[in-house]
Amino acid sequence: MSEVLERIWQHQQISRVELVEHTGLTSGTITNLTHELIELKLIREFEAVSGNVGRRRVMLGFDPSLYRIIGLDIGRATLEIVVVDLNGKIIKTIERDMSDRKGPDDYFEVIDPLMNELKREIETAGHSILGLGAGVPGPMDYSAGSLLDPPNFPGWKGFPLQRTLEEKFGLVTLIEDDARTSAMAERWYGLGRSVQDLVFITMGIGIGGGVVHGGKIVRGTNGLCGQVGHMTILLDGKICDCGNRGCWETVGSIPGILSRWSGGNTMEQLKEAIRQGDAEALECMENTLGYLETALINVYNMYDPELVVLGGRLYPYLADYLLPVQNHLRSRLYAFAKDRLRIEPSTFGTSQSAVGAAALLFGFLLSEPVRLLALNDGA
Amino acid sequence: MSEVLERIWQHQQISRVELVEHTGLTSGTITNLTHELIELKLIREFEAVSGNVGRRRVMLGFDPSLYRIIGLDIGRATLEIVVVDLNGKIIKTIERDMSDRKGPDDYFEVIDPLMNELKREIETAGHSILGLGAGVPGPMDYSAGSLLDPPNFPGWKGFPLQRTLEEKFGLVTLIEDDARTSAMAERWYGLGRSVQDLVFITMGIGIGGGVVHGGKIVRGTNGLCGQVGHMTILLDGKICDCGNRGCWETVGSIPGILSRWSGGNTMEQLKEAIRQGDAEALECMENTLGYLETALINVYNMYDPELVVLGGRLYPYLADYLLPVQNHLRSRLYAFAKDRLRIEPSTFGTSQSAVGAAALLFGFLLSEPVRLLALNDGA
Repeated sequence: MSEVLERIWQHQQISRVELVEHTGLTSGTITNLTHELIELKLIREFEAVSGNVGRRRVMLGFDPSLYRIIGLDIGRATLEIVVVDLNGKIIKTIERDMSDRKGPDDYFEVIDPLMNELKREIETAGHSILGLGAGVPGPMDYSAGSLLDPPNFPGWKGFPLQRTLEEKFGLVTLIEDDARTSAMAERWYGLGRSVQDLVFITMGIGIGGGVVHGGKIVRGTNGLCGQVGHMTILLDGKICDCGNRGCWETVGSIPGILSRWSGGNTMEQLKEAIRQGDAEALECMENTLGYLETALINVYNMYDPELVVLGGRLYPYLADYLLPVQNHLRSRLYAFAKDRLRIEPSTFGTSQSAVGAAALLFGFLLSEPVRLLALNDGA
Repeated sequence: MSEVLERIWQHQQISRVELVEHTGLTSGTITNLTHELIELKLIREFEAVSGNVGRRRVMLGFDPSLYRIIGLDIGRATLEIVVVDLNGKIIKTIERDMSDRKGPDDYFEVIDPLMNELKREIETAGHSILGLGAGVPGPMDYSAGSLLDPPNFPGWKGFPLQRTLEEKFGLVTLIEDDARTSAMAERWYGLGRSVQDLVFITMGIGIGGGVVHGGKIVRGTNGLCGQVGHMTILLDGKICDCGNRGCWETVGSIPGILSRWSGGNTMEQLKEAIRQGDAEALECMENTLGYLETALINVYNMYDPELVVLGGRLYPYLADYLLPVQNHLRSRLYAFAKDRLRIEPSTFGTSQSAVGAAALLFGFLLSEPVRLLALNDGA
C-alpha cells in the first residue's frame, strides 16, 4: 500500500496500468489496493485527457476532499499555522508576530485559541484531521519529544513539546527541528519530488540546515547533522551560544548581520541604506555575501547535494545577490562539478517550516498508511 | 545468503541456532544456506567453548583457507599492496616509496612485476583470488572508473584505472577514493563493526574524508561528499588546487604544515625542533592543532557521526596531541553532545587504504556473493 501511495505521490496522477508497470504488482493486486485506498478516501479517481488523440483515461491521485493536516511552526519571532490537503495544497494560513513573547506558556496563550478554533472549523466543514506536525528551533531530544537547549530561544529548554501538543489537541503529533521540517516541505511538496539528496538552509534569527539523503532526513548521532549555522567561518570569531566560536550564525544570521552594522536595527533599514549607497551598509552586505559564499562552498565540499535550497526570513534580503554568489561559487568549486551546481529559493517562503511540519505527517502516511489511520481511529 | 554472511561478519562466530534467531529464517533454510556457503569455502565450521560449563558448540565463521583478496593503495608518495583472507587478516604487506615517480606509466613499472609475482605466489600456494581493490586520490569519475583531476597528483587526470587493472591482472576490480577505502577498512574490519555512522579523515600530502552513513559509503552527487580537506578554514586563505581558497588542506596537510615553517622540509625535522623547544616550530604545531580542532568541530556540526577516525601519514605526528584537542573540542561542542564525542586513531596505520581497498571486495561479497563468485568463474 505504501509503495502504491509513493508512486501516486511521485507522478501526481497515474493510471492503474502504469501502477502495474511501475510496481511490478499484478493488476488484480493493484485493483484491490486502489479500491481500498479509494474507500479510505486517501486517493480518488478522475478523468484526464491524455495523448494526441485526446482519449479520456481514468487516473488516480490523492483525494483532497476528506483529510486535512495541520502544520505548526513555532519560531523565534513568529508563529505560523497552515492547513493542507493531501495534495499539499495550502488551504489556510495563520501567522502571528511573537517577538514580544517568551517561553512555552506565553506561546501557548496564542496557540491554544487558534488551534481550538481551527479544529472546530475543519471538523464543522466535514473534514477529518490526519494529524499535527510542528517545527521548532533545534537541536531536539527525539526520544523525549522535547527541545534541548536551542540558542536564542529562552524558556524552551527541555520543554516536552510533543506530549503537550498531543494532550492539548488530541491529534497524532510529530515534531522536528525547523530546518528539517523545511527540508521535508521541499522533499514532499516542493523541488524534492525528483531529487534524492538536498540540503535546506534556513536563515533568520538563527541559521539551520536540513539534510535529505536518499529521500530521507538525516539526523546524525546526536541530532546535529546539518547544523550548518554552527560551522566555523571566522577562525578566531566570537563565542556562539552553541559553545563554538566564529560560527556562521554569529555573523550571517539577521542578528549577526545587524551586529556588524551601526546604522540601524532592522534588515529593512539596512536594505534602504544599501539602496542609498551608504558605504558601511554596502560593506556589511559584501561581508555577509562572502560568509554565505564560504558556507555554501563548505556545504558542497562536505555534503555534495544535488540541490541546495535557501529559505528563512533573511533570504528575501539576499535574493537579489544570489546570481553573483552562484558565479563566485562556481569559480571555487572543483571544475568538473561547476555545471551541476544548483541553488534555488524555497518553494513556500515564510510558510516553509509549517508546510514541512504538515509534510511530516504526509511522510508518515506514505510509509505507514494503515498505522496512521489506526492511530487516528484510536484518538 | 547475503543476510547470513552479514550476520556471520557481525558476530565473527555464530551458531546455526543464533542465525535462525537473528534472521528469522527457518532452521531448514539456515541448514541449507550454511551448507552451501561451506561448500563454496566462504564459511567453515569450528568448535568453540561457550558458557560457564564449558560446553563445546559448533560455530560458523568465515573460512580463511581458500580465498584471498588483494588491496592496492596508489598514493601520492607510496604504493602499498596487501593480501587479506576472508577474516580481514593481513597475510602480506608490500610497500614502496614512490616519491620520485610521476604518472601512471611510472607507477605501473613498479606495480606490474609486484602484482604478477604476488598472483603467482598466491596461486602456487593453492589459494584463489577473489578480486582486487584499489584506492587512489579522489575525486573520481565513478561511471568511467577513472580519476578526475586529483590535486597534487600530476599525470593521472582521466586515467582509466579500473579498466587498466582489470586488463592487466584479470581480476574482478573495484576502485575508490582513498579516503573512502580507508573508511571501508574501519567499517568492515575495524572499529565500524558496531558503528553505522562514521567519518574517516586521512591526513597526509592531501586531506580527504570518507563518510559512512547507515553502514554505507556516501559519495554525493558528484563524488565530493566528505571532501573535508576542502572546507574553508581561513576565510581569505590562499587558493587551493581544488579552486577554493583557504582550504584546510592548504594549511593542515604535510605540505601545508611545512609551508608555514621555515626551519626544515620534513615532519621529522619539525618534530625534532618541537622536542628542542624551537619557538617557531611550536607555533607552527599550535596553529596546526587549531586548524584540526576547527575542522573537527565542523565535521561534528555538519555530519554528527558516532565516530571520527583519524589516519594517514600525518597522523603519527599529531597523535600525542589528540587528548588536548579532544578536550578543546568538547568545550566547543553543543553541551548535550559533549560526552558522546568519540575520536579514534585508524586501525591499520599506513596500510589503512590498501586494507580498505580489499574491504571493497569483501563488501561486494557480503551483498552479492553469488554474483561475485560467478564473475570469478568467468574470469
